[in-house]
Formats: sequence, C-alpha cells, structure tokens
Amino acid sequence: MTSSTISTSKLRMGMIGGGPGAFIGAVHRTAACLDGEIQLVCGAFSSDPEKSREMGKQLGLSEDRVYGSYKEMIEQEQKSKGMDFVAIVTPNHVHYEPAVLALRAGFDVVLDKPLCFSLNEAHELSQIINETGRTLCLTHTYTGYPMVKQARQMIARNDLGLIRKVYVEYPQGWLSHEDVNSKQAKWRLDPKQSGPSGCLGDIGVHAFNLAEYITGLQVTHVCADLRSVVESRQLDDDASVLLRFNNGASGVLMASQICTGEENNLKIRVYGENGSIEWQHGDCNTLAVRWFDSPTEIYRTGTQYLSQSAIHNTRVPAGHPEGYIEAFANIYRNFKRTICAKTNNEKNPSEQWEDFPSIKEGVRGMAFIETCLANSKNNTEKWTELNE
Amino acid sequence: MTSSTISTSKLRMGMIGGGPGAFIGAVHRTAACLDGEIQLVCGAFSSDPEKSREMGKQLGLSEDRVYGSYKEMIEQEQKSKGMDFVAIVTPNHVHYEPAVLALRAGFDVVLDKPLCFSLNEAHELSQIINETGRTLCLTHTYTGYPMVKQARQMIARNDLGLIRKVYVEYPQGWLSHEDVNSKQAKWRLDPKQSGPSGCLGDIGVHAFNLAEYITGLQVTHVCADLRSVVESRQLDDDASVLLRFNNGASGVLMASQICTGEENNLKIRVYGENGSIEWQHGDCNTLAVRWFDSPTEIYRTGTQYLSQSAIHNTRVPAGHPEGYIEAFANIYRNFKRTICAKTNNEKNPSEQWEDFPSIKEGVRGMAFIETCLANSKNNTEKWTELNE
Amino acid sequence: MTSSTISTSKLRMGMIGGGPGAFIGAVHRTAACLDGEIQLVCGAFSSDPEKSREMGKQLGLSEDRVYGSYKEMIEQEQKSKGMDFVAIVTPNHVHYEPAVLALRAGFDVVLDKPLCFSLNEAHELSQIINETGRTLCLTHTYTGYPMVKQARQMIARNDLGLIRKVYVEYPQGWLSHEDVNSKQAKWRLDPKQSGPSGCLGDIGVHAFNLAEYITGLQVTHVCADLRSVVESRQLDDDASVLLRFNNGASGVLMASQICTGEENNLKIRVYGENGSIEWQHGDCNTLAVRWFDSPTEIYRTGTQYLSQSAIHNTRVPAGHPEGYIEAFANIYRNFKRTICAKTNNEKNPSEQWEDFPSIKEGVRGMAFIETCLANSKNNTEKWTELNE
Amino acid sequence: MTSSTISTSKLRMGMIGGGPGAFIGAVHRTAACLDGEIQLVCGAFSSDPEKSREMGKQLGLSEDRVYGSYKEMIEQEQKSKGMDFVAIVTPNHVHYEPAVLALRAGFDVVLDKPLCFSLNEAHELSQIINETGRTLCLTHTYTGYPMVKQARQMIARNDLGLIRKVYVEYPQGWLSHEDVNSKQAKWRLDPKQSGPSGCLGDIGVHAFNLAEYITGLQVTHVCADLRSVVESRQLDDDASVLLRFNNGASGVLMASQICTGEENNLKIRVYGENGSIEWQHGDCNTLAVRWFDSPTEIYRTGTQYLSQSAIHNTRVPAGHPEGYIEAFANIYRNFKRTICAKTNNEKNPSEQWEDFPSIKEGVRGMAFIETCLANSKNNTEKWTELNE
Repeated sequence: MTSSTISTSKLRMGMIGGGPGAFIGAVHRTAACLDGEIQLVCGAFSSDPEKSREMGKQLGLSEDRVYGSYKEMIEQEQKSKGMDFVAIVTPNHVHYEPAVLALRAGFDVVLDKPLCFSLNEAHELSQIINETGRTLCLTHTYTGYPMVKQARQMIARNDLGLIRKVYVEYPQGWLSHEDVNSKQAKWRLDPKQSGPSGCLGDIGVHAFNLAEYITGLQVTHVCADLRSVVESRQLDDDASVLLRFNNGASGVLMASQICTGEENNLKIRVYGENGSIEWQHGDCNTLAVRWFDSPTEIYRTGTQYLSQSAIHNTRVPAGHPEGYIEAFANIYRNFKRTICAKTNNEKNPSEQWEDFPSIKEGVRGMAFIETCLANSKNNTEKWTELNE
Repeated sequence: MTSSTISTSKLRMGMIGGGPGAFIGAVHRTAACLDGEIQLVCGAFSSDPEKSREMGKQLGLSEDRVYGSYKEMIEQEQKSKGMDFVAIVTPNHVHYEPAVLALRAGFDVVLDKPLCFSLNEAHELSQIINETGRTLCLTHTYTGYPMVKQARQMIARNDLGLIRKVYVEYPQGWLSHEDVNSKQAKWRLDPKQSGPSGCLGDIGVHAFNLAEYITGLQVTHVCADLRSVVESRQLDDDASVLLRFNNGASGVLMASQICTGEENNLKIRVYGENGSIEWQHGDCNTLAVRWFDSPTEIYRTGTQYLSQSAIHNTRVPAGHPEGYIEAFANIYRNFKRTICAKTNNEKNPSEQWEDFPSIKEGVRGMAFIETCLANSKNNTEKWTELNE
Repeated sequence: MTSSTISTSKLRMGMIGGGPGAFIGAVHRTAACLDGEIQLVCGAFSSDPEKSREMGKQLGLSEDRVYGSYKEMIEQEQKSKGMDFVAIVTPNHVHYEPAVLALRAGFDVVLDKPLCFSLNEAHELSQIINETGRTLCLTHTYTGYPMVKQARQMIARNDLGLIRKVYVEYPQGWLSHEDVNSKQAKWRLDPKQSGPSGCLGDIGVHAFNLAEYITGLQVTHVCADLRSVVESRQLDDDASVLLRFNNGASGVLMASQICTGEENNLKIRVYGENGSIEWQHGDCNTLAVRWFDSPTEIYRTGTQYLSQSAIHNTRVPAGHPEGYIEAFANIYRNFKRTICAKTNNEKNPSEQWEDFPSIKEGVRGMAFIETCLANSKNNTEKWTELNE
Repeated sequence: MTSSTISTSKLRMGMIGGGPGAFIGAVHRTAACLDGEIQLVCGAFSSDPEKSREMGKQLGLSEDRVYGSYKEMIEQEQKSKGMDFVAIVTPNHVHYEPAVLALRAGFDVVLDKPLCFSLNEAHELSQIINETGRTLCLTHTYTGYPMVKQARQMIARNDLGLIRKVYVEYPQGWLSHEDVNSKQAKWRLDPKQSGPSGCLGDIGVHAFNLAEYITGLQVTHVCADLRSVVESRQLDDDASVLLRFNNGASGVLMASQICTGEENNLKIRVYGENGSIEWQHGDCNTLAVRWFDSPTEIYRTGTQYLSQSAIHNTRVPAGHPEGYIEAFANIYRNFKRTICAKTNNEKNPSEQWEDFPSIKEGVRGMAFIETCLANSKNNTEKWTELNE
C-alpha cells in the first residue's frame, strides 16, 4: 500500500473546526464525502495549530493545506482557488465571524446550527449573503430524512386537510447530571461559547425548524417556559413552549436535556382535519399516517409508493435502514448539486436538490430563540409575537 | 334453561344512568361485577321510565327494582335496605344532585368523572361526605392499571430520584369532525350537560389526575391554552397546559379531542434525577424505566418482580393481556373491599385496597379545570395558582 | 350488606375443577360471567371434598350445590334440572371421563384444551356428541380475539390472494428451569396427568388451531422435531414442526416452554399472493396487514372499519385495550347464544354466534399431537400425513 | 469548481462489477470509502466495456484505470502496483474465477456472498488462500452491526448460560410476484447466474451465518424444506430448515422471498438457560435481552455500557441511528485495518479489527446450501449431517 494520486471533479471543501475529539466535525466530513461528490481538501481544524496539524495528518491532507487559523485558510485558499466552499463546525461563538469572512471572500458556506449568537447577527449575515450572492447551508439535519420529506410533501399537497395542531418534542438525557466533563458538554453549558440559550439553541431550534419545515407554516406567537434545572447551570437546560401558527393552528414544543434516560428522540406529530402524521428520530425510516376512519398507514423508506422528494433522498431499498449520517449527507448532496448548477449557470435538473436549510431558516431560528428568552422572563405577557 | 335463584353475599349496587346506548354505564356494570364481589340489584337507568324498564329487563332485574327516577330509587332502596351503594354514570349535569341525595340517604357512592360542574359543588360534596361519613369513589380508571401503580410505587420509594419534569398527554381524534351525531358526543359538546369545559373536563382531568397520582406531587400553577378548534363548538376541544409542581418540577399537559386518527392514548413520562418512567394506555401492560447509564428496563404486568401494589391489581400471569375493563374493575374491587372492612369495623387486611380515587381527587380535578379556564382567558397573567 | 336474592334468566353453569390455586378455573368463571349471560350455580371444584367446599363458599354458592365429585354433581343436577351446562377445567387426565358423563346426562360441555389424551378418545367423544345432539365448546381462547377474527374474515374473502406460507410460533419461558414447583407446572410435566405430550399439548395445539382457524386451511403433513430440553423432563418442552397445508401452502410451527424470558407471545403470520397479515398476542388489539406495493395498514380493535365478526366480539371503543379475559368471554358468549338458540329452536339471530371451537377442532388437535409425536421419533420418514 | 489532485495514504481498491443499475456495487463503494481509509482507484464495472467506462467516468476515475474485463484489470494493476485489493460485487457466477485470478496475482479480496457456486469451489478457494497467504473478506453484512457484536460477546462470556434454541428468520416479499423485471431479480432467478440455490443462497446463507456468528456454535444437522412457490420459478424462493447445533441446541431457520409485504427483516432470537437475546434488522440499533425473572433490558447502540466490540463498530452517539451502510462499512474497515497491520508486519493494535467474515464462513455457507439442497429432496432421511 502506497500513497496514490487520483484525479476527480468533486466539489472541494475546507473545514473550520472539527479537531480531535469533536463529534459533529467528523459527522460533517463523513456526510459530505458519502456520495463521492465532495472532497475535503483543506482545514483549520483547531485554534491550536498543533492540533489542527494533527487532525490534517490523520485525514491524509497535505501539510500546506492545513492551517493554524481560519483567517489564514480563507486568505490562502482565496488566492490559490483551491477550495470551493467552507464548512464551519465550531462551537456557536465561532460561527458568525468565519462565516462573514468566508462569504466576503467569495466562498459558499455550510454552517452548523444555531446560525449565530443573536437575531442581529443573523440579519447581518443575511444581508451579506444578499450582497455577495453566495449560498449558505445550515445543517438542520433532521430535515434531511426521507420520511420527513415525505411528511412535508403530503401536507403540502393537502392530504391531511387544514393543519390544526403540532406537537414537537426533543428530549435528551445526557446533561441531566451536574458533573458533565465531556468536551461536548462544556462549551454547550458556557454562555460565552454557546450564546444566550442552552437547550433551546442546541436542540430546541431543531424542533422549531422541523415543525416549520414539515408543516410549511410559520410560528407567530410563543409562550415559553425555559428553565435551568441542574444546579449551578447558567443556561436553560429545559424548555416548554406553547405555539401559535400563521394559519391559526396551535402547538407545543418541548426540548430538554435533563430527561434522564432519553437518547435523542426528536418526534413530531401534526394533526390535520382529515389525518395526521407522526415521525420520530428513533424510528427514522418510518412515517405513521393516521386517518379519521380507516386503518393507520405505515410508510417506509425505500418503498415504491413514496413521493419524489423522499425517493430522491434515499440510497438503499426498503428494509435496509438508513440513519443519521445519510440524512446529513442528503443536506450536503442537495447543497452541492445546487451550487454546482448555480456555478455552471445551469438550470437545476431537479428542484429536489434545492431542498436544504438556508439563511432564511437561520434567521427564523434566531428569532425563535430570542422571542422565547424574552417571553420566558415576562410573567405579565402570556403570548409574545415572533418577529424576524 | 330456566330462571334460577342464587344466594350470595356480595355488595349490592344500584345504578343511576347507563340506559340503552350508553357506553360508560355498561363498562361500570361489567367492571363492578367482574370479580364476583358486587352485584347489580336495582337501577334508574334513564330519566325516561320506559327506557329504564327496558334496560332493567335486559339486565335480568326484577321489575320492582327498576325505577323511573333516581329520587324514587334512593327513597325506596333506603326503606327496603336492598342496596349497599350507588353508581352514578350519567352525563356530568346529573352528578351532583343524585350524589348528594345518595350520600344523605346513607349510601356510599361511585361517581364517574368529572366530579361535578364547579369547584363550589365539589366543596359541598366534600362537606357532605365529612358529615355523613360515607365513601365516594371517583372512577379515574387509569389509576387502576397495575403498571401505573408500579410507577407510583417506584417513584414513592425514590427509585428515580428528585422528580423534575412531567409530560402527560391525552390525544383523541373522535371529535375532530363537526358533524358528530353519536349520543356520546352530543352531551359532551353541550355546556348544559357537560359543564364549563369540554375536552379538559372529559379527558384532561384524567391526565391531571394521573400525573398527580403517579408522582405523588401536586400541581401549584398552570399556564393554559384552551381552544375550540372545530367550528361552531362552544366548549374547548383542545388543551395545552404548562404546569408547575409543589417540589419545583415543571410539566406539560396536553389533551385534545381533535387529534385525527388518535384513539385514546393517554401517555405519561416522568423524569427524575436518576431515571425516568414511561407508560402509555395503548400498551398498558408495559412500563418502560430508563436510567442514566444502563439499559432501559421493560417491566411487565403479571411478572414476579413487581411491587405489591401492581401484583394486587393483576388477575392473570405475564403475557396474558389485561385491559380497560380489568383496570376499571380494580377501582371497584378496591372500593368494595374498603367499604366492607369499614362496614364490618375491621381493619383493612391490605392497605392496597384503599387505593382508589376519592373525593379528594375530585376536588383537585375541579380546581384544575376552573384554574385552567380562568388562566386561558387571561393574556396578562402567565401563571395562575391552583387553589382548591 | 346482607345476602340477597335476585331472579335472572341466565344460562346456569356447573364447574368441574377450578379449586383453590387453579389458574384457568378462575379465568373460566370470570370469562363465563363477564357479560351477565351465564351464572355459576354449582361445582365439583376439587377431588378433595373439603377443598371443593372451601371454593364453593368463597364463590358464594349454597352448600347443597357444591359437590365432592363430578359424578355426584352430574347425577344430582340431572335430577334437579338446576344446571344447563358443565365447564370442565381440570388437568388433561380428567377431561374425557367427565365430558362423557356430562354429555350422556344431557348437558352441553365447555372443555379446556387439549380435548383429551388420544385421538381414539377424541373420536369417541365425537361419536357421543353425534348421538346425544349435545354441543361441546373447546376453549381455544386465542380464536376469541377480535383481530384474529378480522384476519380470518379477510383471508376468507380472499383479500390476501392464495395463501402460500404460514408462520406460527408460541414461545414461553416459564418452564425453562428445572425446579418448577408451582401447581400449574407439576401436572403439566407429569405424563399421567398431562398425557403423551407436554409443550405440544399445552400450547402447540393452540398454535395449530390458530393457524387452521385464521387460514381456513387444514394441515395435511407434518415434519416434527420434539425435544425434552430441561434435564429429567419426561415430556417434550420444545417443538418445531414443518407443515404442509391442503392448498399447497407450507408452514412452520414453533412452540416452546424453554424460551427463557418469553411470556406468552403466540404470534402468527400468514402470507398470501397479494398481501399478508401478522397478529401477536402481546399486542392483541392490533392486526398488521402488509401489501406488495402500498403502505402497511394497522387495523385496530374497536374501530368502525372492521368486519362484522370483529365488531361482534368487541366490547369497548378503539383505544380501550381488551385482553385475555375478554377473548375468553367471547368464546363463552358465542357458545351460550348458540345453545340458547338451539334450545329454543330459534334460528340463530347472528351466525357470528356460532363461531367457537367445537369437537371438530378438538379431534384435529389430537390428530396433530399424535402425528407429531410419531413423526418426531421416526428418522426415515420426513413427512407424515395428518389423518383424523 | 475544478478538478483537483490530492495525496493520501489510503488503501486502494479496485472493483469488479457494480456497473450502472447495480445495487450492491454502489453500497460496496460507499461503505468502503465511508471512513476515509479506502479509496476506489480502478474498476472493471461491467463485462460491457462501454458500460464500464460510463461508470468509471461517473465515479471520477481516470480513463486508464477503467477496464473492459477483470482479467485485464488484474493483469495491468499487478504490473503497475496501483491497486491494493479487489472487491468483487458481480452476480454469483462471476465470483469464483475473478477471485482465483486476483488471489493468485497477489491481491486480497472482498467478495459478496455467497462465496461461489459449490462447496468444491469453496474448498479450492480456501486452498488458494492458504497457498497465497492472501486475505478474503466475505461481506456477510449483518455481522457488522454493533448490536449483533454485542449479542455475540454476551453469549461468548456466558451471560445467557447454555444456549438451547435458536430462531433465525429472513422474510422478504419483493420476489412474491411472477413478473419481476428488475435487473436485481433477473440474475437471482437464473440458475446459470445464481447457482443451484435461489433464496437460500441469496439470503438464507446470511441467516445461517448470523446464527453461527452470534452463538459461536456450529450447525451439525439440517432438515430442510425448500420450495419454488412462484410458478415457473426454477430455484427455491422459500426455505424452512430445522437445525441441530454442536452443543445440542436446536434451531429453526426460515428464509423466504415470497413473504408479500416484508421488506428485509432478518431477525434472530437465541435462548439460553438464563436469558435470551433478540435482534432484528428493522430495529438494528436495539438489542433486547430477556431474563428468567427480571425486567427485559433494552441495549442501544452508542451507549456507554456496551462491550468493546460494539463500541468499536459504532460512529455516533446514542440516539443517532446507524444503518446498513455503516454496518457494511464496519466490515470494510475491519478488513482494511487487518490487512494493513499484516502488510506492515505490525501486531494488530486491536483484535476487534480482525472481526470480519472470511473464507471460513464462506466454506461453511456453501456446505449449508449444499446440505439443505440434498436433504430437501430426500424424503427418507430426516436429518442430514452438515460436513464442510
């Protein structure tokens, strides 16, 4: 076995963050490369140049493409034209600045959620995107699942009738004890790295995004109960939010990181006049569809009867489980194909490819977080309007 | 096959309501008699004497024990000493008056929920019970399930540690369409028969009761969103309520009758510092117990490792499903054995027998309904204290 | 509370067996009386007259209707005309003789499975039934479940197309240890009381019956592997049987009492050309129906879209679980209504009532057991024909 | 976006088969490359040179590394030393010859199951492997799942006690109709391409392998019922096999492709004296462990309490579903790390890496298929010994 050289025409990705011990960085790398349409070519994997180099070596990158800071990487790669887009997978406090730099340097950006620290920053990012004409993809992974797309499409074509009620919940248990020492936990519990919200920014915003994505509706008002349950914790680790939607529907959003024994079971139920859907992450290849007076139907990934959108985002036949990495890869693949079409001034051969979370979803997420934080502290205002 | 005569020493039940076409009346009769410790001896099954007679005949009662009104029944049976207690299974507007009459006439009472129309009436009933020394059993059926009792006992002995979060939900879909013609639906949607609340009084109060029963905690504050979703409906058919408990825990209660496709899937999750439990009506013989860092445990009805309370309320071995009627029968059996012990001035041979919902739970339920109704209309008070 | 007297026109049942500590006797009593159409009037509950009396007292029977032997009971009740039918719930070795006596004395009979000790005895019982014109009901409980009836009806009307494959399994774990001391275990492990087969006679015959009932087919050939797994055990405690059906379908039947950790999860899957069904006892109110190229459908007890046969055997609305006792009660209720119609020379108002297991199913069960026993010992004959 | 050049030190894979429209070829490519430790460098993707080129282009390979025949590829790559191993993903009739050529040319081989056409060929392959010292990896994918490895390890350390009973089943429905036109179906139904067995060779052998892998036992005798259910079919499409294991345990193996409505739900249950396990492909991240008298335990992928073997084969935390591609990638990763260690004369840093199916499993699989085919035709021999 020796080193080798291959020639490809893949989209070239640089990565910011994702150093040794990071969870989501590795997921981004695997997901981005899953379909063989993207390759990692450079990275600033850590603010510690030594660690960055170590990771670069481990990943088989040539040394001159591994950087000690994201500024350096963006500058160099802009000059060399060696990179097509940047994936930013750092803790939240290092989202905004590298995103701005990358966009202004002419790079498209993939960014982990939440978009940034505040609605203000979100608006600024939005403006820069408008100015630069660049594309931003926000990795709200859960919208990448085929059965989530199936649900969205069924609701869009009015299978369920008028939507009246949305229950979305995201219980986790991993932060239910005080002495959490993992790297993952530490930055999430630190307001300087995580931002003004803990649980809501980390997972609540996924639930919010999922609800708006599946229903095609927008939340207009919230009534929120955010709490710091574990002693000494500075940020919310538990959230319950009543919702109102723009079509008059109501909803409940629950997100919590102190639900001892729960893994990562994001679940959504949407009730319409004629039928309802239920999807949960723990059984991600299944969509239950219930009707007023006929048997419940179980839709399954990989079958022939699904919508185009679901089929497009599936790789293997029915009965071969797909999971988190594949859903993540769907986000990347759609992003990649979209910007390739854009770059080549081609019409996108399939509108399905344009289906990935963007700056719009990022702005709405930040608005949701800020509105919930404000409402939760206010005991004389039950409902607060959600304005972007 | 001929008529026959048998001699028994069972507790003798009279029934008010439960005429032709009634659902819950038949359930009460079957459940009460399941264990052969209670027998139905008389009834005023309908306010229409003809229908009452028809039902009496169908049930094999002798004609002179079938009455055209509950007043007549209570008077006559008081004289003849032919009845031991009364089961009131009428729509809500015929709860208070017959209960008062029966208690004052010296009869113990089994009453379907909700207790009555208002907290005021509830307090009056409570006072009459104090004065008369009679026993009232309120059929909050779901607390009769063995695995609910298992959960309660595990929490009581602190298996889960401090309780921090309670999610309880009760989605139904049968009232999601406007044109509901069934007898069951009609009275529930009519404020004159149902009382000031629809969904919350019909099923939300079950969910509330279950949460307090399992946790041993009390709700102190509510923030409620009650809605009439189906057009032309006068009462709430959908409710979402944020909760605060007396130990500092928070919670969410959802109850809805417009969740198209849902059957009757009351579900509760309770999260403690060390572990959590999940029980749902659709899989009533199972209790899931989750831990911070060991495998989830599945407790099952009829096994050897359960608590006394669960074992006491089970009839068949593991793997032989028990259901709604058996849970209902547990309420009746415990009530029966308690009042027999009381009547005979015996010490109750098992404290398990005293475990059935009583006037206390009835008062709390009415307080919950009234507090939610008040809070839901008030947009400048987020949290309202729940006072009995 | 005092003794009381009520007059009814219920069918009057005498019981043989079901003394203190018996499991199935209590189930028979509860199930028989559940719908208020049958009442227990007399019994020979034990071969020990003292124990029989004790049980009679406990059940509130008058002393003169409690007997020290079934012979005495049958004689006396024949004279007094005080009993309409007999339920025989003894261990297997006390099935044949009391059944013969009762039938010859003019009583209809309910008998627990397996019918008797041998195919010979089964034929004799069959002949006596023909001669006497009496009705025998064999309590193959599992055919009493509404969703089993739904499956049968769907297959009967050819929803699934030609049936090709049947998998039926019945794993239990309660006899997986050697030192089983319960009364239930002891007689089952003793050839003198249990008959020539252990597991196959106790539960395998249920699985066999379920397969023939649901499919409407008959097994024509078996290839059996019966084993005594636990040391020192004289009878089979584990059985695997390959099947051939009269329409050319094949099948597999598994029954075992050494499947540690299993409860009582009888499960059947039937595969037809166009679709398939799956039902399992652990989730008895659900029937999964799968199709070649459309979503799996989940049928549920208590819904509006079921077949008449399922609706007829259900008591409560969807979402209110029914279980083992209710299924057992369905057998009794159908038996009762059938013999009442017969007694009164009425046409059965509903053919659904005639749907209960009879002597026919008993004969087939005995044939199945004997054929499997013979085949299992024979290593030079792979397939043995099943002849009644 | 332009072409780019990267330098890596990955293991270099050549592929035989996997042209346009192939299912398993794409899975092999994605799985092999998932962890960034293997790269595809060349291929003979089809016996039609045009199609091979088309696929090579699509995959971004340089033209001179895409071949019109596997012979050519093996010769050329042997000369150029540009390839480290070969993955053979063709229909069964093109397994043996390319494998022999590749091994003799000094290449390690990854081969899709079943190994080849006959036990004879299997023995020859085995001998060549012995002679050449090369490594062969057979992609019995299902042994790559973390929870399968967990089960194996629990049984190996005697958690369940003596194993007594194994039920393994593999129902599929996709071949239940006659007119199957897909490329996937066609070759599988053609004896010239598929070999002497259809269903048993395609999926039954997976079930067999899984049973031996999880239990650590070996099947010694089979009693098989193979059938061609769909009219005009030449090969078996349905199989039921009774098993005997070398420790005295018995078992049942079912595999069928005519189970209408079933997806790909391989499932195994293993019963020991003290406990039992259940794993199924449809819920691949879960392992149910049952005990004689304590609650069932649910083990889950990604948790802290698992065995080293399970942890080693997992990529993401609990609650982030992994699936088929990840399991497949585990096979490849373990194979890759093993042969790298071998190549570098290093001790394998983790014995976990040596855990992938090899020629041994291939020989046993072929022996199983042949023995079942022989037994199934023989009506005077119930049990046939399985000899390698």
